[in-house]
Amino acid sequence: MLCEQLCCQDEVEVDGEGFDTFACTLSYNGAPFCGFAKQPGQLTVQGELERALATIFRAEVPIVCAGRTDTGVHALGQVISFDLPKGAMETKGTTAFLRSMNALTNGAISVLTVERKDAGFSARFDAVSREYRYFICDRIAAPQFTAPFSWHIAHQLDIDAMAEAATYLIGEHDFKSFCLAASAIDKPTCRNVQEISFASTSIMGEDLLQITVKGNAFLHSMVRALVGTLVLVGRGKREPAWIQEVLDAKKRTAAGENAPATGLVLWHVTYDSLS
Amino acid sequence: MLCEQLCCQDEVEVDGEGFDTFACTLSYNGAPFCGFAKQPGQLTVQGELERALATIFRAEVPIVCAGRTDTGVHALGQVISFDLPKGAMETKGTTAFLRSMNALTNGAISVLTVERKDAGFSARFDAVSREYRYFICDRIAAPQFTAPFSWHIAHQLDIDAMAEAATYLIGEHDFKSFCLAASAIDKPTCRNVQEISFASTSIMGEDLLQITVKGNAFLHSMVRALVGTLVLVGRGKREPAWIQEVLDAKKRTAAGENAPATGLVLWHVTYDSLS
Repeated sequence: MLCEQLCCQDEVEVDGEGFDTFACTLSYNGAPFCGFAKQPGQLTVQGELERALATIFRAEVPIVCAGRTDTGVHALGQVISFDLPKGAMETKGTTAFLRSMNALTNGAISVLTVERKDAGFSARFDAVSREYRYFICDRIAAPQFTAPFSWHIAHQLDIDAMAEAATYLIGEHDFKSFCLAASAIDKPTCRNVQEISFASTSIMGEDLLQITVKGNAFLHSMVRALVGTLVLVGRGKREPAWIQEVLDAKKRTAAGENAPATGLVLWHVTYDSLS
Repeated sequence: MLCEQLCCQDEVEVDGEGFDTFACTLSYNGAPFCGFAKQPGQLTVQGELERALATIFRAEVPIVCAGRTDTGVHALGQVISFDLPKGAMETKGTTAFLRSMNALTNGAISVLTVERKDAGFSARFDAVSREYRYFICDRIAAPQFTAPFSWHIAHQLDIDAMAEAATYLIGEHDFKSFCLAASAIDKPTCRNVQEISFASTSIMGEDLLQITVKGNAFLHSMVRALVGTLVLVGRGKREPAWIQEVLDAKKRTAAGENAPATGLVLWHVTYDSLS
């Protein structure tokens, strides 16, 4: 049942500066964190990880992540990359490294795997797609076991209407209407959404709607805005074709409100097999 | 996705005292509760349910449950029964009843179904078997999504050895060694364990060992004592055949410690189809 993959590639190219590059996959419950990105005086995933790395290697070890999750957003398969002085990981040992990282983050972050990568690998820039999953419980009674990672809506949703609405969002579009307004100023807001799919799933005996959203990259709070907007269709407040109007408007106020962070999980990040 | 079964039997026998009998199924996360059984000044499942029933029906409505879960133990399919003055439920309406029960228990208890039963039906005495499930995460990294309902053991368990050990426990035995000592004084401690099975399961992407324990009835903290004892075998601290010695000893100190309440879920209660 131990699922850590303690894998070091035998042959890797290293850069000329005496560093080796590593990647870790990790999970966390987003509830206690003020998001991934480090902020002074706040509990953040990056802050906790860099503190643990500094303790282990007695040096500052800046990290890069695949998806900077917002406050309260969870991750099952977040990926980070970082450089270490040549030989530092071998001296520590990968099993001891994982034990130390998990102990130093007090169970709030599960560091699942560590893997040596080619020099220059970036968890952010080498990612070819990100998959998020959003969980909704649409029954009268609140969920119990799945409450920490789902959105409870005490009204039955029309999944067919949501699926029809989602077809307008697939492909390359300007998603400015689905981006935190302040983050969209003078920045490119085109993204390629590869998949939005809907499935009924039972987790710990509780029936949930699972919305899978996959794309090359996402704007700030884009997945939550997409889900919040699709839920308006699911509740019958808007027609599926309204989504085209929202896209065309290119302003945040045209779309629905963000779905709560609690239902969102960064599920998986895909890399080229060569990286 | 609405899974409430709002089912009233058309033809039921009623007693002669002007009452109708009802049963509800419910789920709860045991963490905030000091167990099921009502205790003065403590938050309990029974206390919350009886408070809600009293508010709705403006009368004291004592309830009976299928399994009196301990502090911190969860339930997915707990069953309660209670009597109401004839016509009271019809006046309220079952959908409104479920909405009120869920609202009045503030989401801490999910009241899933309500069903009219034959007069004299008892959730406790008419139950023919109870199924508990215990979840263990045996990897270095703590679980994140399943942490609230699992026991994290950072050592790989020998499932085959645990399964062999469990064979000694199947059938009718005196389980005095697995019962809270104070509860075993001058009381029958024979029970019939029908099943102890082991399965690897993935919940929210986290691999867990799921131990299913099914029996006609259980002694106080018996399932937790069984799991705690089997884990000693799984960790290689005891041989499977040691379980027979534990049974024969008929004293609580012979067995392992109770597994933590957090990993235990009262999963399902079975009744004769006639009741």
